Amino acid sequence: MADVALQETTPQHDTSPIVRARDGAIEIVTLARPASRNALSDAMLAALAAALDDIRADRAIRAVVLTAQGPVFSAGHDLKEMTAARAGPDGGRAFYADIIGRCAAVMQAIVTLPQPVIAAVQGTATAAGCQLVASCDLAVAAREAKFCTPGVNIGLFCSTPMVALSRNVAPKQALEMLLLGEMIDAETACAWGLVNRVAAKDEVLKTALALANKIAAKSAHTVKIGKEAFYRQREMTLPEAYTYATEVMVENMLARDAEEGISAFIEKRHPHWEDR
Amino acid sequence: MADVALQETTPQHDTSPIVRARDGAIEIVTLARPASRNALSDAMLAALAAALDDIRADRAIRAVVLTAQGPVFSAGHDLKEMTAARAGPDGGRAFYADIIGRCAAVMQAIVTLPQPVIAAVQGTATAAGCQLVASCDLAVAAREAKFCTPGVNIGLFCSTPMVALSRNVAPKQALEMLLLGEMIDAETACAWGLVNRVAAKDEVLKTALALANKIAAKSAHTVKIGKEAFYRQREMTLPEAYTYATEVMVENMLARDAEEGISAFIEKRHPHWEDR
Amino acid sequence: MADVALQETTPQHDTSPIVRARDGAIEIVTLARPASRNALSDAMLAALAAALDDIRADRAIRAVVLTAQGPVFSAGHDLKEMTAARAGPDGGRAFYADIIGRCAAVMQAIVTLPQPVIAAVQGTATAAGCQLVASCDLAVAAREAKFCTPGVNIGLFCSTPMVALSRNVAPKQALEMLLLGEMIDAETACAWGLVNRVAAKDEVLKTALALANKIAAKSAHTVKIGKEAFYRQREMTLPEAYTYATEVMVENMLARDAEEGISAFIEKRHPHWEDR
Repeated sequence: MADVALQETTPQHDTSPIVRARDGAIEIVTLARPASRNALSDAMLAALAAALDDIRADRAIRAVVLTAQGPVFSAGHDLKEMTAARAGPDGGRAFYADIIGRCAAVMQAIVTLPQPVIAAVQGTATAAGCQLVASCDLAVAAREAKFCTPGVNIGLFCSTPMVALSRNVAPKQALEMLLLGEMIDAETACAWGLVNRVAAKDEVLKTALALANKIAAKSAHTVKIGKEAFYRQREMTLPEAYTYATEVMVENMLARDAEEGISAFIEKRHPHWEDR
Repeated sequence: MADVALQETTPQHDTSPIVRARDGAIEIVTLARPASRNALSDAMLAALAAALDDIRADRAIRAVVLTAQGPVFSAGHDLKEMTAARAGPDGGRAFYADIIGRCAAVMQAIVTLPQPVIAAVQGTATAAGCQLVASCDLAVAAREAKFCTPGVNIGLFCSTPMVALSRNVAPKQALEMLLLGEMIDAETACAWGLVNRVAAKDEVLKTALALANKIAAKSAHTVKIGKEAFYRQREMTLPEAYTYATEVMVENMLARDAEEGISAFIEKRHPHWEDR
Repeated sequence: MADVALQETTPQHDTSPIVRARDGAIEIVTLARPASRNALSDAMLAALAAALDDIRADRAIRAVVLTAQGPVFSAGHDLKEMTAARAGPDGGRAFYADIIGRCAAVMQAIVTLPQPVIAAVQGTATAAGCQLVASCDLAVAAREAKFCTPGVNIGLFCSTPMVALSRNVAPKQALEMLLLGEMIDAETACAWGLVNRVAAKDEVLKTALALANKIAAKSAHTVKIGKEAFYRQREMTLPEAYTYATEVMVENMLARDAEEGISAFIEKRHPHWEDR
């Protein structure tokens, strides 16, 4: 991150497994437990959920970049933590329902966040780590990054990761990853639609920030209604989707940022967004 | 179009923003307002809606090629017209609901048209112009053609265009176009599934007509039921889709064109379609 | 198949149109009517349905490879048989409803089979033969293999094949195949997502078996619940899919193979699956 000026917002003495930093209107959330391969442990999920709640309420944040420290982006659930829970009187059921449910909630919180989230995948993303990439709106991957849903190798099928994965790539490609549990490389992930860009490893964060800054220069109101409508209309039939999107667009036309943006376009000047 | 013999059906004195021409069984609809970048104005949408109504009822037309004059295929909504409507007592609400709704209706009229529609994209297709390409059954693009959903740049998210776009390309690719508002080139559009073929600029219409003529040589009855079933079954669960498609195929088998087509195939002769 | 040691389970005097063989935990089902281009005749569909029923109940079978003899993988429905049925008092209606319905049932039996099915496409796959490839979980194609939904050429739109095809490839690509009825080659099929791998013709079966053996080394219980969940969650909205997949994953965590697999992973040893 040497080339990016960051205003770190996480105190040095903090024990949070994530580091939050602000770069202009961009919030950079960094998974910061490289020694445990940035596993989505109880603490990591709690920190991510809290960060997303904060970001959702902070209108100064216009886009989010999600990255990680170390050679692994995220290895998914913390298997030692999961195993320890078996000692409980219910064999771990309550813990599993809680942690898998909270993991799914974090993934959906990314989808429903008003601000776009861009994954900057500096290293290997496996299982729920791969799901995290799939759940982001956009993704940039290092040339060396790899992607994998290896649960099938340890008897625990990547069932929740596949919800996100199968909404990103074609079914035979998703099943190849899920049934074989093997790594695919960044170029393949890009060709399949799981990531948008492949960059040199030391350019990944910069590339993601460049995308984030382009988005941050738009009207936040417009981006918010567009992102929300994108995911909602996808699950509708064509006539339903058009009825809904037409309503969204009429309201959008009547909002001040559209009036300003269209006027600026016609007058060949830069727009001044109200909502930023 | 020098290499294509056209029987022009639009009178010279006509003020319609589209030009209609017939090439054998193919109807060529050309957006003919290059000076206003073939914007989908009130008049343009009315002309397209009327043309599609005509074509729907004309059994002599077996396929449609949709193309445009000038360097732009279509730039989408007419922003000056949209801005003028703000002066109304309702701030434009009724006008926007009407024009965005009619635009969505034209897109759906292409989808429900019995005849396949092939876009011959000679130039840039943006916003609802990109939606028009996405709404066609097939598309051929000039090597120089570009595609863009730039509404986010002017405060008006391309919400209705995304209905068609997100049903053509993978979600991260669609979101990249929608959130960044940048151009993608024809080769990228082809790799992503937004167009079927890339051709030299002066070969685009010829290539689209070649595809149209191949389709025109089939049984119109068969093409019609197939196109309709394609879009209907897509929105069903797998068991529902199979139940429905099985019914469609049984009726198809009992139709005369299937009897003739299969007999001709077995007897190694050309079929004589009833419905053409 | 010279390089694969097979224990043939179909008696030599058998008149079944398919040959079944066992290679370790892999069942190899071979369409064996090359003279009739492995058409999905009444007899072929009955044999496939019976084989799938057997396989479903046989826990010793961990994966299935579906291949064929001769230059054609399968040419789809048997048009001579279909034509002969026209002589019936109902013009063939009952026969068509029966055979098209049973064909759709075989395709869905592949999807719902607990064991993954891998197509080893040694030659041309057309119409319902192409549907068979699309219905498998994974597919390997010979470099010379071709794919086609040519029903439109004989007046009988490939309506049931398109159910499977349109769930594998992008809509404009599916419509190109369905409306033009032309062949696409194996590399194109791979780029579009219809097959996972392209191999030299004499390596197709070996490649498919290698994939099958990788899957056979996993926990059968895990593979079964994963495959089932994959197809079920695909047809749900995102929140529904996460609720369902979370339940699946909690149950999976509590199953013995997950406990063993995760323990083995943590202890860096090979797992010993109960369910194999």
